[in-house]
Amino acid sequence: MARLIEITDPADERLADFRDLSRADRRPDRPGGRGLVIAEGVVVVRRLVASPYPVRALLGVRRRVEELAEDLVGLDVPAYVASAEVMAEVVGFHLNRGVLAAADRAAQPTAAELADPGRGRRCLAVLEGVGDHENLGAMFRNAAALGVDGVLLGAGCADPLYRRSVRVSMGHVLRVPFAVLEPWPQGLDMLRDNGFRVVALTPRADSVPLRDAGLDRGRVALLLGSEGPGLTEEAIAAADSAVRIPMASGVDSLNVATAAAIAFHAAARP
Amino acid sequence: MARLIEITDPADERLADFRDLSRADRRPDRPGGRGLVIAEGVVVVRRLVASPYPVRALLGVRRRVEELAEDLVGLDVPAYVASAEVMAEVVGFHLNRGVLAAADRAAQPTAAELADPGRGRRCLAVLEGVGDHENLGAMFRNAAALGVDGVLLGAGCADPLYRRSVRVSMGHVLRVPFAVLEPWPQGLDMLRDNGFRVVALTPRADSVPLRDAGLDRGRVALLLGSEGPGLTEEAIAAADSAVRIPMASGVDSLNVATAAAIAFHAAARP
Repeated sequence: MARLIEITDPADERLADFRDLSRADRRPDRPGGRGLVIAEGVVVVRRLVASPYPVRALLGVRRRVEELAEDLVGLDVPAYVASAEVMAEVVGFHLNRGVLAAADRAAQPTAAELADPGRGRRCLAVLEGVGDHENLGAMFRNAAALGVDGVLLGAGCADPLYRRSVRVSMGHVLRVPFAVLEPWPQGLDMLRDNGFRVVALTPRADSVPLRDAGLDRGRVALLLGSEGPGLTEEAIAAADSAVRIPMASGVDSLNVATAAAIAFHAAARP
Repeated sequence: MARLIEITDPADERLADFRDLSRADRRPDRPGGRGLVIAEGVVVVRRLVASPYPVRALLGVRRRVEELAEDLVGLDVPAYVASAEVMAEVVGFHLNRGVLAAADRAAQPTAAELADPGRGRRCLAVLEGVGDHENLGAMFRNAAALGVDGVLLGAGCADPLYRRSVRVSMGHVLRVPFAVLEPWPQGLDMLRDNGFRVVALTPRADSVPLRDAGLDRGRVALLLGSEGPGLTEEAIAAADSAVRIPMASGVDSLNVATAAAIAFHAAARP
């Protein structure tokens, strides 16, 4: 069980991981200048504890830490217990989720490992230019729910382990494996070599309606662009085929995570 | 063309429609205690101007009002032009969209009119308990994009014309017809009498996977519940059949507007 330690002094040095949380994602003192993995709230902390990321410590109000008691069995890390006021002073703002956990980053699989036919992954999402942390987090949540087996990050994607992305994903960025795909978009060839059909989602009129594309068959890598600009010409040209979600004219395109969910439902199996 | 009127005094009485905007939705002085319809931003103001709602006035910074010049041709209402500072004082907060329009509510079709076979509507969304304005707005945006022909509001739904709902819908609540369905859930019989198959979306294990339900055939009324509790037993019992989006175990359900989008894509045609 994690060691419960009462904290009353917001300046306590043992809370360094949680200090000034709105900047905790960018830590020049840490490898790659990237921060710790921060989980907020009981549900996401639970997913962090169950993930391969090595938990360093927890900080929470007593009620929330106690709610996690079963999850913390066998976990040898400090669980700092503080009042909501002390927590707010440490993290820099009022945190209504009541509990946090910090973990180190862990080695991710490589793109080649994610695509390895021996691992049995049938549907991968490949993202280009998804720089918005909330959209990125929502895409991971949808990927986890709908059975996407892994996510590849092409050019211009945000860091899935950024705090806001972890939160919006409901912790599923900690569960769905991901890797950077380089070079971009030439790296898509590697997917093809591993038996994946690379299918671009784009509103182009000459693309095939999603429901007619038979994405439920074989191995599929779904190529998804950002909200607004969508996929680059280069990425679409590097795909084997293009599909679209038929949409009413004069309507703004769907939110990118919503469009992704529709495509995931067509292609993946949970 | 709307009459451009410069405003320099935030206390100017002609701006009453826009004063204290965060409360503009609840106006005890207006019919039903409900407020005006408020559109924010160029895109949504444009949709309001094109809608059946009678526009009363606009308020915006010069650049944004000028951007709307073509839309305002033939519209005989005042367009108040003010600085961003004056606007902020009037509405009560800084508004980064730069332009607003206010309209009166207009008569909505009845549920019976929406379901009338003579009107050719093939796919309706029927919502129960969607009390969150952002989810409701997002559902209208998705309905508009994916070709849902109308929305029926069962028990416990929020007001689609609330300001935040209008904004999140990107103005599509002004475009997709909606009506209250009463009594609830007995009113569903009226849909059935008009040839609609009433299909409940629910995660229940004994429901049919969405993709096997053949929702692209015939007239379909898709019954959707709120995030969290989902549909009531009564609503599910009143439906002809139940479908589910297959989801990975241990994953929180999808956001309700995302789940709705997947179902809309299966059932509607833009």
